[in-house]
Amino acid sequence: MARAPTPRTRIKRGATRARYEAEVIRSILRAGLYCHVGVVHDGHPAVIPTAYALVDDALCIHGSTANRVMREVRDGAEACVAVTLLDGLVLARSAFHHSVNYRSVVLYGRAIEVTAADEKILALNALVDHMVPGRSAGVRPPSHEELLRTMVLRIPLDEASAKVRGGPPVDEEEDYALDVWAGEIPLRTVAGAPVSDPRTSSAVPEEVVSRYHRLR
Amino acid sequence: MARAPTPRTRIKRGATRARYEAEVIRSILRAGLYCHVGVVHDGHPAVIPTAYALVDDALCIHGSTANRVMREVRDGAEACVAVTLLDGLVLARSAFHHSVNYRSVVLYGRAIEVTAADEKILALNALVDHMVPGRSAGVRPPSHEELLRTMVLRIPLDEASAKVRGGPPVDEEEDYALDVWAGEIPLRTVAGAPVSDPRTSSAVPEEVVSRYHRLR
Repeated sequence: MARAPTPRTRIKRGATRARYEAEVIRSILRAGLYCHVGVVHDGHPAVIPTAYALVDDALCIHGSTANRVMREVRDGAEACVAVTLLDGLVLARSAFHHSVNYRSVVLYGRAIEVTAADEKILALNALVDHMVPGRSAGVRPPSHEELLRTMVLRIPLDEASAKVRGGPPVDEEEDYALDVWAGEIPLRTVAGAPVSDPRTSSAVPEEVVSRYHRLR
Repeated sequence: MARAPTPRTRIKRGATRARYEAEVIRSILRAGLYCHVGVVHDGHPAVIPTAYALVDDALCIHGSTANRVMREVRDGAEACVAVTLLDGLVLARSAFHHSVNYRSVVLYGRAIEVTAADEKILALNALVDHMVPGRSAGVRPPSHEELLRTMVLRIPLDEASAKVRGGPPVDEEEDYALDVWAGEIPLRTVAGAPVSDPRTSSAVPEEVVSRYHRLR
């Protein structure tokens, strides 16, 4: 289902690449591993990379209760969250039409702090499971003190838009006659063999093996 | 050479991961393929992903003269630029100590617009060559009209910091006794075989083949 874009999420540049369907937005957010969170901090822009997870209809981020950007967002500052997946380099015949193939989401919103211990644990488990589905069930859960030191924020997916570009370059018609190779260099993120911590004697668990043989 | 951090670039969270050496910052910027630019737009945060290149002591970005974020930066708004390279997932014995290995740079600055045609072409070539070194020499250069439609901004690398995390998880001492596998899942970006544009009959050039057999 497509949500109507707001004046802010309505994409003006490259409008043909804009996507507003909730399923497109969610699939990009499921595929990404980290986001960039932008806020206005003392009148200045600040951008930090951080992990995230989807919990119901919200994007959850977490951080130390001492983190300045997190505190700003917790205290009501609006956030702009970007998730970008680079799918390829697009090499055109002209310098001007060089581009990239990508899937990206931009989300605007104000956060709701998750304070109830059970909801907080749910969100923190989702953050671990976003890295490796199923992992949270097998690790030591957060202690009371760890919960107190961790801030969890939910940003509703209400005001989000996606942009997707795929396919070959689009050159000026007269440039197709040039003897210049053009095309796409597909890019993807792949996992290497898991590196066991020197102090672990446990075997690499099945969920790690299965997930990281087919990343993205 | 390390540049002294400003109050803003001095890293407070995870200070042991902070790096201020110009060479570390430049090497991360050389390895990245795109950045996220944050600005304050009408009092709200806005973050956009975009390509960049290093030209001398500045990070260059480009965009349509109609792009709102680019115009904001051109007109004097401060920018916060983040480049993040995800090197691995760090799976700890406790949910709390899950982390990621990464190299990241955050740069604050105000842009200088590049307006002279020759400098503009130099920066636009650098943007193409950042994708594929040497490519700009073989493609059709920007026309006069394309130059007019493209805005090029230089953001000096004066106020930048890096953060780097590598290695295994760091767990609470008592958790090392748990029978939970811990370790790192290394991640990297790899290129697939170049996909020729259906309308090209030229061979894949050597610079594409050589560059993308050893990405990052």
